[in-house]
Amino acid sequence: MATNNKKSNVTLKVIPLGGLDGIGKNMTAFECGDDMVLVDAGLMFPDDNQPGIDLVLPDYTYVLENEHKLRGIIITHGHEDHTGALPYLLQDLNNKVPIFSSKLTLGFIEGKLSEFRIRAPKFREVKGGSHVNLGCFSIEFFSTTHSIPGALGVFLKTPAGTVVHTGDFKLDQTPIDGVTPDYGALAKFGKQGVDLLMSDSTNATVPGFTKSEAEVGPSILHAIKNAKGRVFVASFSSHIHRLQQICDAAKKCNRKIVVTGRSMLTNTRVARELGYLKVDENDLLDAFEINGIPEDKLVVMCTGSQGEPLSALSRMANGEHKTLSIHEGDTVIISATPVPGNEKAVQQVVNSLAKLGCDVYDKSRALVHVSGHASQEELKLMLALTKPSYFMPVHGEAVHLRAHAALGQKMGVPAKNIFVIDNGDSLEMRDGIVKRGRSVESGVVYVDGLRIGDTDPIVLRDRQKLASDGMVTVVAMLDMKRKKIGDLEFSGRGVSFPIDDQFSADASAAIQRAIEKGKFNFSSSGTDAIRKAVRDALSNYIWNNNRTRPMIIPVVMEV
Amino acid sequence: MATNNKKSNVTLKVIPLGGLDGIGKNMTAFECGDDMVLVDAGLMFPDDNQPGIDLVLPDYTYVLENEHKLRGIIITHGHEDHTGALPYLLQDLNNKVPIFSSKLTLGFIEGKLSEFRIRAPKFREVKGGSHVNLGCFSIEFFSTTHSIPGALGVFLKTPAGTVVHTGDFKLDQTPIDGVTPDYGALAKFGKQGVDLLMSDSTNATVPGFTKSEAEVGPSILHAIKNAKGRVFVASFSSHIHRLQQICDAAKKCNRKIVVTGRSMLTNTRVARELGYLKVDENDLLDAFEINGIPEDKLVVMCTGSQGEPLSALSRMANGEHKTLSIHEGDTVIISATPVPGNEKAVQQVVNSLAKLGCDVYDKSRALVHVSGHASQEELKLMLALTKPSYFMPVHGEAVHLRAHAALGQKMGVPAKNIFVIDNGDSLEMRDGIVKRGRSVESGVVYVDGLRIGDTDPIVLRDRQKLASDGMVTVVAMLDMKRKKIGDLEFSGRGVSFPIDDQFSADASAAIQRAIEKGKFNFSSSGTDAIRKAVRDALSNYIWNNNRTRPMIIPVVMEV
Repeated sequence: MATNNKKSNVTLKVIPLGGLDGIGKNMTAFECGDDMVLVDAGLMFPDDNQPGIDLVLPDYTYVLENEHKLRGIIITHGHEDHTGALPYLLQDLNNKVPIFSSKLTLGFIEGKLSEFRIRAPKFREVKGGSHVNLGCFSIEFFSTTHSIPGALGVFLKTPAGTVVHTGDFKLDQTPIDGVTPDYGALAKFGKQGVDLLMSDSTNATVPGFTKSEAEVGPSILHAIKNAKGRVFVASFSSHIHRLQQICDAAKKCNRKIVVTGRSMLTNTRVARELGYLKVDENDLLDAFEINGIPEDKLVVMCTGSQGEPLSALSRMANGEHKTLSIHEGDTVIISATPVPGNEKAVQQVVNSLAKLGCDVYDKSRALVHVSGHASQEELKLMLALTKPSYFMPVHGEAVHLRAHAALGQKMGVPAKNIFVIDNGDSLEMRDGIVKRGRSVESGVVYVDGLRIGDTDPIVLRDRQKLASDGMVTVVAMLDMKRKKIGDLEFSGRGVSFPIDDQFSADASAAIQRAIEKGKFNFSSSGTDAIRKAVRDALSNYIWNNNRTRPMIIPVVMEV
Repeated sequence: MATNNKKSNVTLKVIPLGGLDGIGKNMTAFECGDDMVLVDAGLMFPDDNQPGIDLVLPDYTYVLENEHKLRGIIITHGHEDHTGALPYLLQDLNNKVPIFSSKLTLGFIEGKLSEFRIRAPKFREVKGGSHVNLGCFSIEFFSTTHSIPGALGVFLKTPAGTVVHTGDFKLDQTPIDGVTPDYGALAKFGKQGVDLLMSDSTNATVPGFTKSEAEVGPSILHAIKNAKGRVFVASFSSHIHRLQQICDAAKKCNRKIVVTGRSMLTNTRVARELGYLKVDENDLLDAFEINGIPEDKLVVMCTGSQGEPLSALSRMANGEHKTLSIHEGDTVIISATPVPGNEKAVQQVVNSLAKLGCDVYDKSRALVHVSGHASQEELKLMLALTKPSYFMPVHGEAVHLRAHAALGQKMGVPAKNIFVIDNGDSLEMRDGIVKRGRSVESGVVYVDGLRIGDTDPIVLRDRQKLASDGMVTVVAMLDMKRKKIGDLEFSGRGVSFPIDDQFSADASAAIQRAIEKGKFNFSSSGTDAIRKAVRDALSNYIWNNNRTRPMIIPVVMEV
């Protein structure tokens, strides 16, 4: 099962820099001698434990350290967890490295790069069946199906052995654009010999076969047909096949289509220009043109399927949208599933809509959404087609990677040949034999305003503390001559007790007592101890009276 | 369908004070002439929009204002969303009002009240079939089934008409304790005439019939049988029927049972003392007695099914538990479903367990949990049995209440007789005829440390702002004589840029420039304007350099 053209003195290093600790920031470096290619450069959205963080990137120090080897960046598809780190990475690489991807993916990336003022990126359009040589890498792309058109997997041939990286995929036999997964190519790779398979684990705990995207269309059509008023459909704006089905259903019901939401407007424009979304110009209306159109002749295609408070759907539901507002009698279809962590936000939007008197469809009521990721039977089929000697589950949380590893064993890959590793760990392949390699610098990099990278974990802990308990500032004037504390000034935010004259008097008294008792050294060398004593005395005073411990910011000034 | 013993000059007011804006803080006042009874007194747990809040209570001002009428408090069952406001309410009522509930519910309440040092509450134990007269209310209790034993519904007869309040229920034909829902009583009420039905809406969007609790037992037994090492089962500690089935399964597998987690220890003790949980003393071990017991002879029953970071399960998974730690080869069963908002926390625990090499069972893998609430077919059966003239869906979010209202219409209740109302709205019944009444004071009351009630919405907004952007304090000494600002002192928390000498120098310069330009009035009456100018100058300086807007706390002191 090993490859033909291997040389025993060459090692291929496979280094996942992201994507193995959750769904997000996918990035894998493949390094062989003096050549390196990168597969994907994605971001992750911050969660509740990362308050105030804008974006999370993989730490790609290793890529920058080996910049001289980097021959190209392959992007498997246009989702942000595969593309979102690209603007940052390209800036660090001075935009020198070519990017290989499908036409639609490059179209989406182009828009994003222009927001970062990155001009003339070195785009290299490829498609399923394309071959590219990058240093000692011979790369063949293959078509897959996913919740975005133009999704590709890669077959990497190197002197040390071969790798199939699936990208994100499902095996949809009836994709909307007719571009089926390339089973022939996968079978061919299997025959040629796949040393290592890296495969999408997102749905590895889900039994069965993921339903085809084509099954969503009839449900949406049915809902639109039954609607008496306007229909609002919220969906991911990159899910062009979904949008196509919404447009087709609207057309069948003689309804015009209004598009709203920034990314929905951008992505539908790009997809139409590139020929991925087919909708008649005459069937589209601008949001400000709808006056006079009967309510049962409209479908509004919008962002907001994740309950984002600033999205078009939330704003229309709350009466905060410029041109449209949702009202009683409207039908709303949430054509998506909440990303983990967004459940409550989505439910809040659904409740607002229910209160308005809308008829709301979500996944629990009708088949208005299907997953874009392969379930267990598809994952097994991928293993059966490629027949890998070694297997590394990728793209998932710990529980997904392990469930996928178990499937690998079921499919005959020996347990010792299955690698469930962490970001920054590496595999080394030599003569088609794969072993664990050394780890490289890895981790997460936070984007927080203009700052990229050095957000201290303490900052995040402080933010969580501030959120749960608020803060009180105390300014103490140290009278160094008389060796006592003068007037104290208090100021608080996010605390539920009032900081009024009574508080100031009582807290001052408590602090003065503590300072008198402590016999402090009133000199410049003693101010740290005094500052600490002020903080502790105030914290205890507040605890005794309110049973809360806000963050105390003591400022001591010498006079 | 109206009642027999009605007098046309009497009005029954039905006033839900909580429970209609989500799952939580259930409380309804029934007021008839000079008599009032309260059904349930629950709390709600805070969500992401209420950072730092400990608990949320319904605003029960109306109850206190009518304290002289209050004849009794009925608690339908022992879940905190039905009992948790009771300690606060009883304190406000000086513990004078009798509490009617089942033995187990009173047992759970007693423990909670003793934590609040509320002694000798006026407990009145009732059960299905009990009759109680409270002023002009003639009340009959009926047994239901729910995810806790001893759940009751109530049939309230008044001179103005009759009401059935279901409490939380499902229609479990094979409950673990053999106490089936009292269909006979419900049919009898239906025959006597139910003017108003108030029914649990939690699962009103779920088609079909909720599975019986008895179906969970075999799945848990199967998982324990197949386990090679220890088995940890996390569940709600009040779910005594679930715990019974876990204990029975452990017994069948010749495994001893260890109980851990504070509420799990308390509730199993109470339930055993009161005869609700039947487990042989010899089969129970203390956590510190397990040395020497083979791993395949142990089942640990623990809290933590919601991913709570301080729960037994999380601590055992993280190696922070006093006596137990989970390791490779252990089996963990999450015998619960995440409460909305807890999905991500639960998933994080599942991932930690997967990383340890545990075999994790959750609802998606096996039938290790079923809901305690009625699905659509059961809700329809409740409507069919009670045949109400009027219907008010209760206990649910907006989307649930509306879905339940739609079921009511399907079952023949005219749309105009169905009331989907808000907390604090009221219904008025006279001669069995129900109309909308006037609204009363209502809303939410926050418990934040020792403070109850007056947490300002601004406090919560400030906490969210602090969490997302952090804060910077600036202390400015105003030299009133020279009419200028002296040294500035900066201090920050939760900001990702360093507050170092460079920052202090540059920010000071920016502030000084703004003050010089502003030509401020350096007198006591001018300090507010100077404070604002300092804040704005610092905020702009930080925005220009970092593109973030932390909260600025300016303190100006005159010297």
